[in-house]
Amino acid sequence: MMKKAFVTKQQVEAIEKKYPTPFYLYDEKGIIDNARAVKKAFAWNPGFREYFAVKATPNPMIMKLLQAEGCGFDCSSITELMLSRSIGASGQDIMFSSNDTPANEFVYANEIGGIINFDDITHIEYAQKALGGVLPETISCRYNPGGVFTMSNGIMDNPGDSKYGMTKAQLFEAFKMLKDKGVKHFGIHAFLASNTVTNEYYPTLAAQLFELAVELEKETGADVSFINLSGGVGIPYEPDKEGNDIAAIGEGVRKEFEKILVPAGMGDVSIYTEMGRFMLGPYGALVTKAIHEKHIYKEYIGVDACAVNLMRPAMYGSYHHITVLGKEDAPLDHVYDVTGSLCENNDKFAIDRKLPKIDMGDYLFIHDAGAHGFAMGYNYNGKLWCAELLLKEDGSVEQIRRAQTPRDYFATLDGLSMYSELDKIMKELENRK
Amino acid sequence: MMKKAFVTKQQVEAIEKKYPTPFYLYDEKGIIDNARAVKKAFAWNPGFREYFAVKATPNPMIMKLLQAEGCGFDCSSITELMLSRSIGASGQDIMFSSNDTPANEFVYANEIGGIINFDDITHIEYAQKALGGVLPETISCRYNPGGVFTMSNGIMDNPGDSKYGMTKAQLFEAFKMLKDKGVKHFGIHAFLASNTVTNEYYPTLAAQLFELAVELEKETGADVSFINLSGGVGIPYEPDKEGNDIAAIGEGVRKEFEKILVPAGMGDVSIYTEMGRFMLGPYGALVTKAIHEKHIYKEYIGVDACAVNLMRPAMYGSYHHITVLGKEDAPLDHVYDVTGSLCENNDKFAIDRKLPKIDMGDYLFIHDAGAHGFAMGYNYNGKLWCAELLLKEDGSVEQIRRAQTPRDYFATLDGLSMYSELDKIMKELENRK
Repeated sequence: MMKKAFVTKQQVEAIEKKYPTPFYLYDEKGIIDNARAVKKAFAWNPGFREYFAVKATPNPMIMKLLQAEGCGFDCSSITELMLSRSIGASGQDIMFSSNDTPANEFVYANEIGGIINFDDITHIEYAQKALGGVLPETISCRYNPGGVFTMSNGIMDNPGDSKYGMTKAQLFEAFKMLKDKGVKHFGIHAFLASNTVTNEYYPTLAAQLFELAVELEKETGADVSFINLSGGVGIPYEPDKEGNDIAAIGEGVRKEFEKILVPAGMGDVSIYTEMGRFMLGPYGALVTKAIHEKHIYKEYIGVDACAVNLMRPAMYGSYHHITVLGKEDAPLDHVYDVTGSLCENNDKFAIDRKLPKIDMGDYLFIHDAGAHGFAMGYNYNGKLWCAELLLKEDGSVEQIRRAQTPRDYFATLDGLSMYSELDKIMKELENRK
Repeated sequence: MMKKAFVTKQQVEAIEKKYPTPFYLYDEKGIIDNARAVKKAFAWNPGFREYFAVKATPNPMIMKLLQAEGCGFDCSSITELMLSRSIGASGQDIMFSSNDTPANEFVYANEIGGIINFDDITHIEYAQKALGGVLPETISCRYNPGGVFTMSNGIMDNPGDSKYGMTKAQLFEAFKMLKDKGVKHFGIHAFLASNTVTNEYYPTLAAQLFELAVELEKETGADVSFINLSGGVGIPYEPDKEGNDIAAIGEGVRKEFEKILVPAGMGDVSIYTEMGRFMLGPYGALVTKAIHEKHIYKEYIGVDACAVNLMRPAMYGSYHHITVLGKEDAPLDHVYDVTGSLCENNDKFAIDRKLPKIDMGDYLFIHDAGAHGFAMGYNYNGKLWCAELLLKEDGSVEQIRRAQTPRDYFATLDGLSMYSELDKIMKELENRK
């Protein structure tokens, strides 16, 4: 599969007149089309809902697009809950799937009516105390089967080494405890593998959870009203890799549903998902400009973005495909390391990458940065976050987050004696613009 | 060597009454004593100066402590330059050691009189153009010898794979070009290995740079006025590792200086260093509280800090020693993973760590977080930066950076339509406090 940028060089030239590089660019049409494909794939389940994993792309304008397509929001912190509320989400629109959760976040999640997903059995009493003794009527519990999770295609992950969820015995105990405490409706949640690119992951996981749900209802008498497959459905970062087929995935889950839940009289269970990467990954790019070329023991292209804007290559060694805009059809006859400006040798967007000859001023479109891209921004070396822009269906561009300024970066120093001097320096530089 | 926390449980209990955990705590006395030891180790060189690597701990109150001990500031970006200026540093107090540098940062560094250190030969014309044709009288150039850098003790690093600096041939060419362009005084800079814990690194590097300086003066006639050994002098993160002896390091550099530079008539060359980790690492800790314990396939302790506050374990798999305050002498008879609350399985401050039994409410003192700790803070999952506190010599505590609030985190959304709703939500929560 060939990776194609969703903008042309001419479009970026026009955008840059108003918004300097680097910036994140999101593709409205791509986001909406994909959200509809997800909804369609699970349309066989009347209660289906995708709770978008806000952590992937915590931008309220992006969230609004997904909200219009019927998505709810999977939140992992109080600020994500606040963001969801700011666009009008509340109650069952919100899933609070968090771990090592502070008391005040349980309180706030409950206050706005979000569904709480307990990561651990000890959280039940911890939260109950925080909530003044009364738990909500609907509660979800996170399951971790331990060991190694293996799919028939050989892909595996290690839930036994992961900090999330409850053991099977704990899950049964938790359901009983919760029932005793007056909880009426139950959910089951599990996240067993990250960024899978196989149509088998959700169906395999679903089969496990469906069987578990049948057992749980039988043994505890609890009403399982939803099963949350969480995230883990990924995207192919490499251009030669085939992506997930969400229709096939939805169909695979349906087969297990028909096979396991329906015969058990549980055909009314709703299926929830909490995808982030699959919902946004391919529909966001980091657009940056080549500003330096360096010829030492290797060939380097220095760009105006750095790991502060996209940390995945530095933290995980992740591959992100790069298109040099305007040179889509040029031969890949150069080998470059593409670097940012951090004083960190891991600040490289690409290592030994075959690319067309890059000239200063060329725009590099860094693919698949729509999820866990901007969201992982940091400020190392005092570098600042860039803007986020939305490319609308009609071709227009809207800024959906402004770039940070030194004033944002220095905000938490505001009580210090030298802050007035810093303020003077900032004003001086602001006045030059 | 035993790692000892620089505060007691009683002190932290007192601090927590005013400043909730988690927080960074810096040890004023440790910082000052160490800065003096560095100065003493190089006192044989009249022009010696440590340019503190601001990127390690970009806090102006910490910088002021070092300024009082005679340090200058190694800056890698415009915001670091601004911070340095805010405490009154200017001119030769500032070294601008950056790479893939944008034009406006060269302009600002030059405007405040900082010494510019060129990372690449192509930067000479790039900067000259940005500076309106005139380069400053003093310029430094960064050298990268390529290949593998090996010390007699077997420790090595790979400058040939690093993006920094110029080849030897480029360095000679650069000096000639710069001389032709009117530059009068020269510096040489190199960074060949990161976080070395051996007294040999600086002397080995110094010998290479001294020989290079002699060659450069001879061949180009350029006046080499300083040699910048940059950073790379590290600290032992593990408790059983012996640290660097800065007196021995200073003496090792002196021997090479006497052997190589003095006989060449270059005994007036100044030695500069740009240490960050060695200056601050051991004198800052992340103090966090145990809030959850989880018993699944492993034993977990959940704390109220997460990777957002200290990323090194997540990004590099780094070891950070942990002292459970008040249990300094208790047997290490439990094995825990110590986790934060990110939805990221790499958010673990310790894996399979032998620790005393941890009770809820215990304070964990995470050692050696004084450099590249707070500085690498991010906001993944919408989590916020914590405060930085200074433990003064007299035992009092001063807040030197306040914790982030949701308002800081949401600041760059300020132009959006839903911002007024977000503002209302923030006000509501602020009013509860």
